[in-house]
Amino acid sequence: MTIYIVNPNSSQHVTEGIDHAVDPMRAASPVPIEARTLIEGPPGIETQAHVDGVVAPILAHCAKLENQASAFVVACYSDPGLAALREQSNHPVLGIAEASILTAMTLGQRFGIVSILSKSVPRHMRYVGAMGVMDRLAGDQPLELSVLELSDKTRTFERLKTVGSSLRDGVMADVLILGCAGMTAFRADLEAYLGIPVVEPCQAAAAMAIGRVALQKTR
Amino acid sequence: MTIYIVNPNSSQHVTEGIDHAVDPMRAASPVPIEARTLIEGPPGIETQAHVDGVVAPILAHCAKLENQASAFVVACYSDPGLAALREQSNHPVLGIAEASILTAMTLGQRFGIVSILSKSVPRHMRYVGAMGVMDRLAGDQPLELSVLELSDKTRTFERLKTVGSSLRDGVMADVLILGCAGMTAFRADLEAYLGIPVVEPCQAAAAMAIGRVALQKTR
Amino acid sequence: MTIYIVNPNSSQHVTEGIDHAVDPMRAASPVPIEARTLIEGPPGIETQAHVDGVVAPILAHCAKLENQASAFVVACYSDPGLAALREQSNHPVLGIAEASILTAMTLGQRFGIVSILSKSVPRHMRYVGAMGVMDRLAGDQPLELSVLELSDKTRTFERLKTVGSSLRDGVMADVLILGCAGMTAFRADLEAYLGIPVVEPCQAAAAMAIGRVALQKTR
Amino acid sequence: MTIYIVNPNSSQHVTEGIDHAVDPMRAASPVPIEARTLIEGPPGIETQAHVDGVVAPILAHCAKLENQASAFVVACYSDPGLAALREQSNHPVLGIAEASILTAMTLGQRFGIVSILSKSVPRHMRYVGAMGVMDRLAGDQPLELSVLELSDKTRTFERLKTVGSSLRDGVMADVLILGCAGMTAFRADLEAYLGIPVVEPCQAAAAMAIGRVALQKTR
Amino acid sequence: MTIYIVNPNSSQHVTEGIDHAVDPMRAASPVPIEARTLIEGPPGIETQAHVDGVVAPILAHCAKLENQASAFVVACYSDPGLAALREQSNHPVLGIAEASILTAMTLGQRFGIVSILSKSVPRHMRYVGAMGVMDRLAGDQPLELSVLELSDKTRTFERLKTVGSSLRDGVMADVLILGCAGMTAFRADLEAYLGIPVVEPCQAAAAMAIGRVALQKTR
Amino acid sequence: MTIYIVNPNSSQHVTEGIDHAVDPMRAASPVPIEARTLIEGPPGIETQAHVDGVVAPILAHCAKLENQASAFVVACYSDPGLAALREQSNHPVLGIAEASILTAMTLGQRFGIVSILSKSVPRHMRYVGAMGVMDRLAGDQPLELSVLELSDKTRTFERLKTVGSSLRDGVMADVLILGCAGMTAFRADLEAYLGIPVVEPCQAAAAMAIGRVALQKTR
Repeated sequence: MTIYIVNPNSSQHVTEGIDHAVDPMRAASPVPIEARTLIEGPPGIETQAHVDGVVAPILAHCAKLENQASAFVVACYSDPGLAALREQSNHPVLGIAEASILTAMTLGQRFGIVSILSKSVPRHMRYVGAMGVMDRLAGDQPLELSVLELSDKTRTFERLKTVGSSLRDGVMADVLILGCAGMTAFRADLEAYLGIPVVEPCQAAAAMAIGRVALQKTR
Repeated sequence: MTIYIVNPNSSQHVTEGIDHAVDPMRAASPVPIEARTLIEGPPGIETQAHVDGVVAPILAHCAKLENQASAFVVACYSDPGLAALREQSNHPVLGIAEASILTAMTLGQRFGIVSILSKSVPRHMRYVGAMGVMDRLAGDQPLELSVLELSDKTRTFERLKTVGSSLRDGVMADVLILGCAGMTAFRADLEAYLGIPVVEPCQAAAAMAIGRVALQKTR
Repeated sequence: MTIYIVNPNSSQHVTEGIDHAVDPMRAASPVPIEARTLIEGPPGIETQAHVDGVVAPILAHCAKLENQASAFVVACYSDPGLAALREQSNHPVLGIAEASILTAMTLGQRFGIVSILSKSVPRHMRYVGAMGVMDRLAGDQPLELSVLELSDKTRTFERLKTVGSSLRDGVMADVLILGCAGMTAFRADLEAYLGIPVVEPCQAAAAMAIGRVALQKTR
Repeated sequence: MTIYIVNPNSSQHVTEGIDHAVDPMRAASPVPIEARTLIEGPPGIETQAHVDGVVAPILAHCAKLENQASAFVVACYSDPGLAALREQSNHPVLGIAEASILTAMTLGQRFGIVSILSKSVPRHMRYVGAMGVMDRLAGDQPLELSVLELSDKTRTFERLKTVGSSLRDGVMADVLILGCAGMTAFRADLEAYLGIPVVEPCQAAAAMAIGRVALQKTR
Repeated sequence: MTIYIVNPNSSQHVTEGIDHAVDPMRAASPVPIEARTLIEGPPGIETQAHVDGVVAPILAHCAKLENQASAFVVACYSDPGLAALREQSNHPVLGIAEASILTAMTLGQRFGIVSILSKSVPRHMRYVGAMGVMDRLAGDQPLELSVLELSDKTRTFERLKTVGSSLRDGVMADVLILGCAGMTAFRADLEAYLGIPVVEPCQAAAAMAIGRVALQKTR
Repeated sequence: MTIYIVNPNSSQHVTEGIDHAVDPMRAASPVPIEARTLIEGPPGIETQAHVDGVVAPILAHCAKLENQASAFVVACYSDPGLAALREQSNHPVLGIAEASILTAMTLGQRFGIVSILSKSVPRHMRYVGAMGVMDRLAGDQPLELSVLELSDKTRTFERLKTVGSSLRDGVMADVLILGCAGMTAFRADLEAYLGIPVVEPCQAAAAMAIGRVALQKTR
């Protein structure tokens, strides 16, 4: 039985980043954790059509894994297919956006989201509204870098510092969330730089999935 | 140029009901109004997977109509693909859930939604939350009838009277919304029975689309 | 039968601006649209006493028009008398503040309001709260120009660019509303300058009124 | 200097009820308290047009009293003219709806409102929304008795017991507000019957006015 | 290193119930889980004074365990001392109310809380408000049984069935939370009876703590 | 009978500041007002542990005064023990945070809070959320001065002007609250400097207490 983390974009290096990010957690997990790439996905999920378009392949991908799964994590910050996968699967299903927000709610009182693009922000706002936690949101501000551009690490970290500072000082965020599965490498450095907790959503969701696997033992 | 109302389920009689419901509005519309069936859709949209699954065919269907369209209406009460279609099209795009809620907000202070099934309710709640109008919601209560079962008109109207009364008297709704495109035939009778405004969402969205076509003239 | 747009201030040039703003929509309207001046009103509605004071004359003005009306639009951004006129009239009644906010909610996720004066802002805040849509508001910022000062077009447009940019960049508005019936002339230019949708409220309300006239045909 | 409580309906017996209700507080007030009838008002304020229509006479009435006033209380549960009178007067201005809600917020966590008529409820909902305290509202339920019908004390108290019990048990209100200035006589008996705090709004506003007169001494 | 679950009441049988409830999770936990009784606490925490009074002993109790702790769980549904313990400890700190609510938010859209006493409800309401998740709350209804009375299992389960049904059917809750650490024994049976997920808060918090211990490995 | 204002920190000069601040109100109070120091408290209440730790001594302190009390005011901006003291006492109990927020809600539409330290802000946010008035909050910004540092009056007033201007201009607050009992001396000067109402919370609570003492006469 395995916790499957499904990266719904087809960028293998994003999946590798996720795998690397959750690697230290494997020793503490009761089951293996496996990061997978949805080869049917686009290179990066940057539009609402991308989000909606990957749902059917996610459902098919996970249906095949149902019998050997302990839990599923959808690893895109728009949580594509989260509700549908919950209807389909008998296992715990977590999305990295939801899990990171719930985690941030225990680490601070006002969370800030660092998005990749300004066009992601309205989508996030709809999601934060659907979760009913708008009063806890300090703000959502974009790097204005695409998923692929995140691989320029120097530029990305500069932007992270700028946007993170703006969220901390301008809108009084006391905890930050990296609003894309492609920023895993920067969490620790950004937290050290800013001095407030920074949540990497794949790690947050994997942690919650580990807990849920344990919780299933009580059923 | 035409206002296209796309029924994303494949039930032709639902499309016919929509066509009939908006027929009286044609005389007041500056452009033709055409109701269409998405043949790729399921017979009724009753799960989140149905909702997510029809987005890609809706987008493809509407892309082909883009050049002759004045506006699009997505005619399913989960507004599948609404955000994605807005990204894709240069024309006004309306969803029947959103349009009916915005319309109800001008006809009363607390709106009630009559759903078909209790499993629709959490999906609606996420949507009302995403719209940011939860404080205006009186309640959402199900008929516990599937899309196909709605065709038994006597039973459906009995349930509509019972659920509508419960929303009006139990949770103080002062305006009701029929939360499915398959209830068009009952609006007037239910309004007469209950004595509060009842919004049929396909009509509400078509009305708003007519207004938007007019508004486009100012651009 | 006619859609009556009632400007509750006595400034004829404001009425003329409204008339000009809705003129392109007349070809798409099933009924004539007529902009009228409430001669009993003050030159500009800038205080709460102005707002409350015009309600009785609005009601009287519209009572006389009831028999030849298809719909009424109250054309002041405080929507004076909206609830009372809805109680009085059998026709659809729209207010430009409400209609522009509902319209903006379909064009973006966070709306910004450009007010004329800072003393208008608390009044707007009460109204946005009463509508139950505070979570959708990005911010409300004033030009600090009175209704009469708006006629200096160069200065007004400079201020609109400054305040509009502040709403877009400072508080992340993705759609703007011109928060006064006296700014009709600037919508298109401001939208072109800012690159996000700008809603002129008289046009938005007239569009919605056209839709409602069509919707009445179903009754 | 005097605290003026202005009853904006013309029913002298309502004014007398208010006077009687605040009488025990006079010994604790640093200034006299005087209840006055707005003779220009309707016998009862039961529609939005009534609410808006009394604003101008309230402003005129209070303007004449400005020089001998310590504070003003508007004694109608729709708080007509509250914002306008605050703009006009240099003294503290309180409304019985606002003051009773703020008071109830210190006596319980979820307040219920007993309205006279169901048509009052949407107006109250707009007001609770404008105050931004919707999350504290348990519910608002009507007696379905007009202002004049309240004078049948037996029937009124029966209805108060029924509606109060429904608010306490059905929607979990832990504090109640009498939502009309014409129910002053029933507060103590209803509180004794229900076993939860019951706020009479004229008394609550008078109490707050006394505090504000004291607070003005620090200026 | 150990996950410490601190029961802040002095009733050893409550601690034993917690210990029993989390026992199946031990096999999946990377560290031992130990339930402890705060001997300084009252037999049951039923008033706000109880809640506030146990904070100092909780802090002292946990300070002594800081060096051998992996995480702390405060096991009372009022989460006494949660914020203070987070300030004091370098380890993850979870409260059973917060953790159960966050967990329920992934299992349904509207959570209901089963409280022991009606006087607990306002305290819970303040907490749900402080968490900013009021829009997700369906309702909070009491058993009207004290902590000690819960030990009459037949009566308690009867009340749980009645109140749980009322939350599911009357206010449309689609997930329930047992709002006291003393109801651990009833979760599975109540879930089976009601057919919707039932969250036992000590288990939910222990699960989240296990995840957090794993997450700490990434630091 | 006396209104007791209990300063739960042990800094006598803070108590003296409170006493001085409410002195002008004594002439308007029906009973004496006495400011008291909780000698068991810390010099300043700056952490959550401080807040929780003073509750038991506050309760004990007030229990001894119960028989000669008319009302109690808890004079720390975290309102420690407010709910517990309400359960314990038969008299009106007010907290300066709650009372100042309720007062500010009658003086403006969006209140800003000036905190002493950034670590106070999350605690305030929890409280504003628990009160259910988050939509009325414009912002909460810190001076970054400890309670003891407030005694450097020149520096404190400079910071108050800076932070107050930021709240007024940056987040559109139209009324300010001094978020600590140790800033009593600055209210009038800051109000004069900023041109918007500034609420000193001890005065606001004392005013409300005076009103409540009057209100008790009606029982």
